[in-house]
Amino acid sequence: MRGAVMHGPGEIRVEEREAPRIVEPTDALIRVSAACVCGSDLWPYRGIGTGDGDWPMPMGHEYAGIVEEVGAEVRTVKPGQFVVGSFWASDNTCEICRAGYQSACVDRVPMGALGAQAERLRVPLADGTLVATPDVPSDDLVPSLLAASDVLGTGWFGAVAAEAGPGKTVAVVGDGAVGLLAVLAARQLGAERIVAMSRHESRQRLAREFGATDIIEERGDAGVAAIKELTGGLGAHSVVEAVGTQESMNQAIHATRPGGHVGFVGVAHGVAIDGMDLFWSLAHVHGGPAPVRRFLPELIDLIWNRQIDPGKVFDLSLPLEQAADGYRAMDQRDAIKVLLTP
Amino acid sequence: MRGAVMHGPGEIRVEEREAPRIVEPTDALIRVSAACVCGSDLWPYRGIGTGDGDWPMPMGHEYAGIVEEVGAEVRTVKPGQFVVGSFWASDNTCEICRAGYQSACVDRVPMGALGAQAERLRVPLADGTLVATPDVPSDDLVPSLLAASDVLGTGWFGAVAAEAGPGKTVAVVGDGAVGLLAVLAARQLGAERIVAMSRHESRQRLAREFGATDIIEERGDAGVAAIKELTGGLGAHSVVEAVGTQESMNQAIHATRPGGHVGFVGVAHGVAIDGMDLFWSLAHVHGGPAPVRRFLPELIDLIWNRQIDPGKVFDLSLPLEQAADGYRAMDQRDAIKVLLTP
Repeated sequence: MRGAVMHGPGEIRVEEREAPRIVEPTDALIRVSAACVCGSDLWPYRGIGTGDGDWPMPMGHEYAGIVEEVGAEVRTVKPGQFVVGSFWASDNTCEICRAGYQSACVDRVPMGALGAQAERLRVPLADGTLVATPDVPSDDLVPSLLAASDVLGTGWFGAVAAEAGPGKTVAVVGDGAVGLLAVLAARQLGAERIVAMSRHESRQRLAREFGATDIIEERGDAGVAAIKELTGGLGAHSVVEAVGTQESMNQAIHATRPGGHVGFVGVAHGVAIDGMDLFWSLAHVHGGPAPVRRFLPELIDLIWNRQIDPGKVFDLSLPLEQAADGYRAMDQRDAIKVLLTP
Repeated sequence: MRGAVMHGPGEIRVEEREAPRIVEPTDALIRVSAACVCGSDLWPYRGIGTGDGDWPMPMGHEYAGIVEEVGAEVRTVKPGQFVVGSFWASDNTCEICRAGYQSACVDRVPMGALGAQAERLRVPLADGTLVATPDVPSDDLVPSLLAASDVLGTGWFGAVAAEAGPGKTVAVVGDGAVGLLAVLAARQLGAERIVAMSRHESRQRLAREFGATDIIEERGDAGVAAIKELTGGLGAHSVVEAVGTQESMNQAIHATRPGGHVGFVGVAHGVAIDGMDLFWSLAHVHGGPAPVRRFLPELIDLIWNRQIDPGKVFDLSLPLEQAADGYRAMDQRDAIKVLLTP
C-alpha cells in the first residue's frame, strides 16, 4: 500500500507501507477516498516539537472513505458505506465522551499514528469514531465531508468554545483553513458580526464567502485596537485563536471583552498565558484538540443538505504520490489546504 | 477621621486621615460598621507588586455600614440604611455590567484607593455599587454581611466560574477565607461532592462546616493524584483556584477533567499558564476580580434569612486601632480573616 511518510523535517516521501488489517474486533478498515495535509502537520515538517526518535513518521489524520471490512464487534458501520471519522478514535461511551470531549476519551487512539495519507486506513473503535453518510456521496461533496474530519470540526469547536452565537461579535485570529472555517461556524451559529483577521487577499475573499462581515489586516496590538474600535471600546464577545503562537494568543485574549470567551484551537507551541493578564481580562479561555466526533453528525447533515461548503478551503488537490508538493505549498502558504487523493 | 494606612511593606499605621465628603452627585458617604483585611492586602504587606511610589497607601476595600449622606443623583439608597458594596464601584448600567461583569465596568472605581479600613468611606456610583439590607441588621449578622462585600462574593464567583452545580465534584485549592467560602458557595450551588484541599486542622473543620465532603492534605502533583483517585481517574468537574501562585494554578488545571472548569480568583502573581498544558487539559479557565455586585442581592438574601453564615471566616475581631495586629495575624496565618471595627 502507498502512504506518505515523513523521514525528518521537510522530508516527505510516498512509499510502500504495510497494508493495515483488522487487529481488534472494534476496528474498521477503510479505503481512503480523500485525505489531506493539516496545519499541524507543518509543525514536524518544520522540525518543531520533534526529536530524532520520531522518524520515520507515517502522516495524516484526516480522512473519509469507504468501509471495506469491519471487526466482529462493529455495529454501526458496514462495508460499502462512506464514512467520516475524527482525528482521535474514541469509544464515544465513556464519561468524558458523553460530556462531549471525545478527543480526551479514556480509550482514545491518535489517528495520526496510523497514517491517513495512504490508500487504506485502520480505524480503531469504529462505532465511536466513524459516522456514515446517508449514501455514497457524489464526488463534489467529498472535499467538504473530508473537511469535517478535522479542519471544519476544529474551526467549529473554536467557535463553540468562544461561544459564538446570536447577537455576538466574533473575531477570528488566523486565516488558515481552521480560522476560515471558524468564520463559517460562527455564521452558522448565528453570530451577528464576524471579523476575520487576515492580510491575504485570497483568504479575505474566502472569509467573506464564509460569512465574515469585517476584515482587519492589522496584527498584534494594532489588531486589538482595531477590534476595540469596532466594538465601542469593549472588545469582541468571542474570539477564536486559530494559530498557536504567543502573539496570536495574546491578541485573542486582549481583543476579548470582560466576560467574553476565547476559543483556542491553534496547537499552542511555546505559548505562555500571563496569569495576571488573564486575571484582569476576565475572559473565559477554552480550547484544545477538538472533539470533532461531537459535531460530526450535525456537520455531515449540513454538508449533505448543501447548507455549507467547507470544501472550498481546499485550493490545491493532488494525487497522493505528490504529497511532498502539497506539504511544500502549505508550508510556503501558496495553498490554504491541500487535498490528497490516493 | 481614623484610618489604616500602609507606609511600606509590613508597616501599617492607624492615623488621622482627611474625612471623605461627597464629591460627585452619584456618591454616597457611609459610616463604616465593619471592615476587614483581605488576603490581597497581604501582597503589598509583603512588598510584592509594589514600588516606592505606592506609599503611603490607604488600605481596605471591604465594607458594610450606614449611609450618612448621598449625592443629588443617588436614587436607590438613602441615609440611615445599612448597605453592603463591592470592592469595585460600578455603574451597573453599562454593557459590561449588564453582562454581569461589574468588576470591569467601563466607569469602575477601585474602592481600595479610597481606603475602607476607616471610620467613614466615600462610595462612588452608589446606585450601581451599594445594596441596602431590608433593615438595619442585628450585630450578629454584620460579619456575614461584611463578608459578602468581597471574600464571600469572590469565593462565590470562583465556584460559579468553575461551574459548580448539581452532580458535580468540586475541588477547592486554597484554604484561605476565599477558598473556604468557595466551599460554601459550591454547597449552595448544589455540588454533589466538595473537596477542600487543606492541611490545617482548624480550616479543615470550617471547610466541613461549610459543606466539604472530603479533605485532601496533599499538594502539587500529589494533590492532583489524590483528586484523580477520588474521581475514577478523570479529575474534578470543577476546580476553584483561590491562592494565586504557579503551583496552585498548575494544581487546579491538572486536577480538572477534560471539559471541566477552573474558576480562578487568586490574584495570579507571577503565574504563567503553559499553553500546551492548557491545550491538552481541555479545561475551561475563567477568573479575575470577582463581579461581586452581580451576586450581592442573592447573597444578602441568603444571609438575611440565615441560610448561610459566611461570617464564620472571621476568627479574629479587632478594633480598627489595632489593624497592624490584624495584618500580622493574617500574614502569619494565625488568623483566617480579621474583622476591624472602627
